[in-house]
Amino acid sequence: MSAVKLEECRERIRAELDNVVDFWLKYSHDTVHGGFFTCIGKDGKVYDELKYVWLQGRQVWMYCRLYRSMDRFHKPEILEAAKAGGAFLRKFARVSGSSGQWKCAFCLTRDGKAVKIQRTIFSECFYIMAMDELSRVTGDKDMQLEAEQMMEQLIFWVQKDSSGLGRPQLPGDVPTNGMAVPMMLLCLVQQLTEGRGQEVVQKYRELGSWCVQQILQHIQRDGTAILENVSLEGAELPGCQGRLQNPGHALEAGWFLLQFSVERGDEELQRTAIDKFVELPYQYGWDKEHGGLFYFLDVDGHCPTQLEWSMKLWWPHCEALIAFLMAYSQTKRPELLERFSQVYEYIFSHFSDAENGEWFGYLTQEGKVALDFKGGPFKGFFHVPRCLYMCERILDDLLENKD
Amino acid sequence: MSAVKLEECRERIRAELDNVVDFWLKYSHDTVHGGFFTCIGKDGKVYDELKYVWLQGRQVWMYCRLYRSMDRFHKPEILEAAKAGGAFLRKFARVSGSSGQWKCAFCLTRDGKAVKIQRTIFSECFYIMAMDELSRVTGDKDMQLEAEQMMEQLIFWVQKDSSGLGRPQLPGDVPTNGMAVPMMLLCLVQQLTEGRGQEVVQKYRELGSWCVQQILQHIQRDGTAILENVSLEGAELPGCQGRLQNPGHALEAGWFLLQFSVERGDEELQRTAIDKFVELPYQYGWDKEHGGLFYFLDVDGHCPTQLEWSMKLWWPHCEALIAFLMAYSQTKRPELLERFSQVYEYIFSHFSDAENGEWFGYLTQEGKVALDFKGGPFKGFFHVPRCLYMCERILDDLLENKD
Repeated sequence: MSAVKLEECRERIRAELDNVVDFWLKYSHDTVHGGFFTCIGKDGKVYDELKYVWLQGRQVWMYCRLYRSMDRFHKPEILEAAKAGGAFLRKFARVSGSSGQWKCAFCLTRDGKAVKIQRTIFSECFYIMAMDELSRVTGDKDMQLEAEQMMEQLIFWVQKDSSGLGRPQLPGDVPTNGMAVPMMLLCLVQQLTEGRGQEVVQKYRELGSWCVQQILQHIQRDGTAILENVSLEGAELPGCQGRLQNPGHALEAGWFLLQFSVERGDEELQRTAIDKFVELPYQYGWDKEHGGLFYFLDVDGHCPTQLEWSMKLWWPHCEALIAFLMAYSQTKRPELLERFSQVYEYIFSHFSDAENGEWFGYLTQEGKVALDFKGGPFKGFFHVPRCLYMCERILDDLLENKD
Repeated sequence: MSAVKLEECRERIRAELDNVVDFWLKYSHDTVHGGFFTCIGKDGKVYDELKYVWLQGRQVWMYCRLYRSMDRFHKPEILEAAKAGGAFLRKFARVSGSSGQWKCAFCLTRDGKAVKIQRTIFSECFYIMAMDELSRVTGDKDMQLEAEQMMEQLIFWVQKDSSGLGRPQLPGDVPTNGMAVPMMLLCLVQQLTEGRGQEVVQKYRELGSWCVQQILQHIQRDGTAILENVSLEGAELPGCQGRLQNPGHALEAGWFLLQFSVERGDEELQRTAIDKFVELPYQYGWDKEHGGLFYFLDVDGHCPTQLEWSMKLWWPHCEALIAFLMAYSQTKRPELLERFSQVYEYIFSHFSDAENGEWFGYLTQEGKVALDFKGGPFKGFFHVPRCLYMCERILDDLLENKD
């Protein structure tokens, strides 16, 4: 791929990011109750008023990140939206859980009443991301403190005692190492420490290493497969759960590990990240017949039990785009740029909606739009703009033409 | 449709039922730990050893029902399998829930350790069905008593206080009338009272009427739609939840109501059942382009948020086949037989697997097999054999040629 082609990519990605930001600025703000609508139809109309907390936190984070790191988004409108979203979160997201401890709700009514609490850590993760990033653009130390306090609670749930999450302890439900947990914690370590003083960096240093070690346990079968769930000792688990593969998650872990390996100057980790978490998931995850990444696979070729296993979802493609471009930017190996180009073509010919803006999220295996909304319970202002933002920045560096 | 054609249908249905029973007798029995494997691949191989309690209870029920009501299945092999499944359930399914009360687990390990508990009533529902039906073939009064005692607990959870189910009480989570609950309770009322003495019949008489009234609340929008979730007062709910339609559920409720209306001699209910729960769900639920019933729809034409909304699942087609044939047998209206024939053709050209037996469960919108297993976490020995058994019996009656 030539420099001219890379320049074209950057221009398209830049324009797409502008378009996506405009879409959410225009359609998602609830000026009556605060917070963001996330169930937004193909043409921008709100089709459900529920407010999903993952997506509230992610949108606050994304606005702040754009505001703070890209000149053209350093605008009062974006800062105000982020602050309003943060205020809504702080006012309504924390509720008391089943054990008497607080939890973040998963879903709120339009006016902030808790509808559902998940027995996992992810609402809290996105709350922390929002608070930390918001503290960076507002200078509000209380928010940073709140993020760090909540992080302590998360670490306790993950490493010490998960009973506060509200799941009954059952004899057949042995604790496992699911990819999502160390990935999210690693992402939070990077979030909380970026550019902070040595005290904060040191505080999370060991946790970062632990997350990496937990992620690397998912390399299984003599290095030929990334499995989504393994035992706490890093052994393969029996049955569907043990054989499950989620190529998008592996690719996302891949670029988290690449960032981490550069920070720590760990070349061996960098090589492992590229071989096992970038190239390998593409090899088993890419649909040779119809293109695109499968959502779930079974390492032994059984049919996964998830009904959506063969669908093509937007977010694994976002993660793949970042992973291949970052891996290329670190190594300059041309085959990585080829993969980037392949994912890029698939995305712009399938997900991106030239008519009404933003991306469709859910395609059939054959690449037809299966669900036509732009935002839903799990799709908000996050994977698409994060992908475009990351890729634009990496391309800026590659083209030696920083924003 | 001529009598000759109906005779052909009956022969094919009869042969298919034999084939399906053979499949599960051959592949699903765990002779080591008891209970049934339910994750069974396209060719009969077990691909996961977890034992899903809904499916354990359903298989016990189905074996007993076949044993007790069809001469050719009145065989020791089937009785023994049902008793072994019942013993496994009694030994392992009940566990103490989060509130200290007992609950039935949703999923067990191969050797009976609880893996997961749902915060709903459905594991208990299928446990009750199993115990009541097993008591009928074994004469074991304790099982009948156990079923009735568990039924009292269910009624308490549904009508008085649901806190024992373990869901946190949240201000935004207002109680609703979801179709599944009154449908299942009506099914249980019919199960527990069939052929029992007046004392038992009277005990559940009022509950049966309550279930019917709750189901009828789902007729919305001036009788033009069946909605899956309504308020406790029978009003439409806001958002996706309120607009959701599940044609298969409506059709299943339809034949439950038809049975009930005949028992009670209620002709108005019979007409309502046919108009609103049999013909109407077909009108909005049948895919005019590719054939088959959609899994979920939104009454206002928005895209549902369930990723599988446009897929064609086996069980709504099972329910439709029963519903149309039963409605025809009660009314002799030829258009109902035409619908039966249409569903029948779709089933035998799409779901039934001539190569390895049993049915595929999950097709794409276009009718291609999307998941190729014969049993999974939600597909066991239940909808297919119940459908074939019900249809064979109705056809026997129609053809005045009882088995």
